[in-house]
Amino acid sequence: METADYIQNLRALVEEELGRLTDYPETVPPRLKEAVRYSLLSGGKRLRPLLTLAAAEAAGGERNMALPAACALEMIHTYSLIHDDLPAMDNDDLRRGKPASHVKFGEATAILAGDTLLTEAFAAVGRTPDPDLRAPLIAVLAEAAGAFGMIGGQTDDVIGEKHLSGGSAFADTKSLLSAIHRRKTGALLTAAFRLGGIAARATAAQAEKLAACGEAFGLAFQITDDLLDVTGDEKLLGKRVGKDARLGKLTFPAVWGIEESRAEAARQAEAARAALEEFPETDAKRAILELCRRLLTRNT
Amino acid sequence: METADYIQNLRALVEEELGRLTDYPETVPPRLKEAVRYSLLSGGKRLRPLLTLAAAEAAGGERNMALPAACALEMIHTYSLIHDDLPAMDNDDLRRGKPASHVKFGEATAILAGDTLLTEAFAAVGRTPDPDLRAPLIAVLAEAAGAFGMIGGQTDDVIGEKHLSGGSAFADTKSLLSAIHRRKTGALLTAAFRLGGIAARATAAQAEKLAACGEAFGLAFQITDDLLDVTGDEKLLGKRVGKDARLGKLTFPAVWGIEESRAEAARQAEAARAALEEFPETDAKRAILELCRRLLTRNT
Repeated sequence: METADYIQNLRALVEEELGRLTDYPETVPPRLKEAVRYSLLSGGKRLRPLLTLAAAEAAGGERNMALPAACALEMIHTYSLIHDDLPAMDNDDLRRGKPASHVKFGEATAILAGDTLLTEAFAAVGRTPDPDLRAPLIAVLAEAAGAFGMIGGQTDDVIGEKHLSGGSAFADTKSLLSAIHRRKTGALLTAAFRLGGIAARATAAQAEKLAACGEAFGLAFQITDDLLDVTGDEKLLGKRVGKDARLGKLTFPAVWGIEESRAEAARQAEAARAALEEFPETDAKRAILELCRRLLTRNT
Repeated sequence: METADYIQNLRALVEEELGRLTDYPETVPPRLKEAVRYSLLSGGKRLRPLLTLAAAEAAGGERNMALPAACALEMIHTYSLIHDDLPAMDNDDLRRGKPASHVKFGEATAILAGDTLLTEAFAAVGRTPDPDLRAPLIAVLAEAAGAFGMIGGQTDDVIGEKHLSGGSAFADTKSLLSAIHRRKTGALLTAAFRLGGIAARATAAQAEKLAACGEAFGLAFQITDDLLDVTGDEKLLGKRVGKDARLGKLTFPAVWGIEESRAEAARQAEAARAALEEFPETDAKRAILELCRRLLTRNT
């Protein structure tokens, strides 16, 4: 199968399942349902669930066993975007080319929609077909999303360099930058690979390689994400650019410069590729490598 | 043992475990940790975890097996208070006699602290000693806290009677009131009993009785909570009173009147007692009945 078709098939599976998971009956307030689906079913790239499913198949597992965790990751990613866009946080009015949730529905509903997506993500993983996999998947998901992962990174990101003078564990700007990004976006992307491995009941050796690939992939993603905020096109991206500089955020281009950031992204993409070297040549492995290559030329 | 001592022992266990669960290392941003602990360790009544532990022991189980779920319930309850108090929601500045989280730490940190408590609640249940109990406990917790439970009720509560003209599933004020409260506060209180039953590996018959007790207990709690907002003392309560009327909320005294609300609370407390009739006379059962009795004379 063509790698692009394989990726497209996985994406269709994810889209359908996300729609099904949020097709709440009328006992759920219609406005809450509308707000949840507005943000979740708005044509994101679905990078995290694609990686979860492909990682599971690359390790010899079944996509259906990884599907709940894959969708849960996308739900958690989406909740984090809704809450990050709030006026008290990044105060962003545009997301995926549409008004941000709080602009469309008001702040109260946006907060509640985010809370719903976070909670229902754990409910979804709790329905993984193999009962033995549920608790291990939930443990990885909670760790990646919580105080030690995404929220910790997001907190340092919102507080930014002010953190350095406030009893921080980080000695300098570069180590704080790295720590923020390893957690803020890296934690969920790395979790995608780890969740896929768990769903496939991967061997310890496979799991280690998947985690290494995830770490490198996550870093390459974050660097290119920072670069797009400097060099990207607002229309193509569907979100505001230049906001990192405006908010005085720590970013790779700000700290390392654009050229060195590009070189580092390429090095990380190569590290991600190398980590999977011993995996058999499958559609799934080719898809992961293709998604990784696309990072280096991405414009969205 | 005196029932009051038994309750005090359980409460001490919960306090210690909540402190331990949030004693994050320095890789977690200090400000996030401070905000989480400020709200969580602020001397709440711990009603939900006490009920979880007592329900587990009333059904013949061990408190240690129920402790993670008990603490998770309190963490979810606390996150919901932090988010409810936000300016965009109920806009409340006082909680448990202290400034609300967003007043003390700012809105961004308050939102993140709430998100952390919700996420780490699931992480905590994922560490229940018996691995077989983890997934069933998480399923009940997620259902009680999510779109079908607490958040759904909270959404209707924030939107209030406006909901009735917006394609709601509810035909009239009384049925909406009942539906809001069954979910908004009832869902977590009922979950306390159900989680205790799961942790104890209760029989189906026991589980049914515990759930019935939880439903009645939850309703009695909500009615007395509404009454306190009308008749209570702000100093004793440590939160603002009269705010339901100010916000135009649907409450039991507003819809049924004060006397009939009191009578209904007493009827529900009796129903909770009756549901446990066949359980053996243990400290745990006596504690549940004592907590239920206290609802009718509560002033905090």
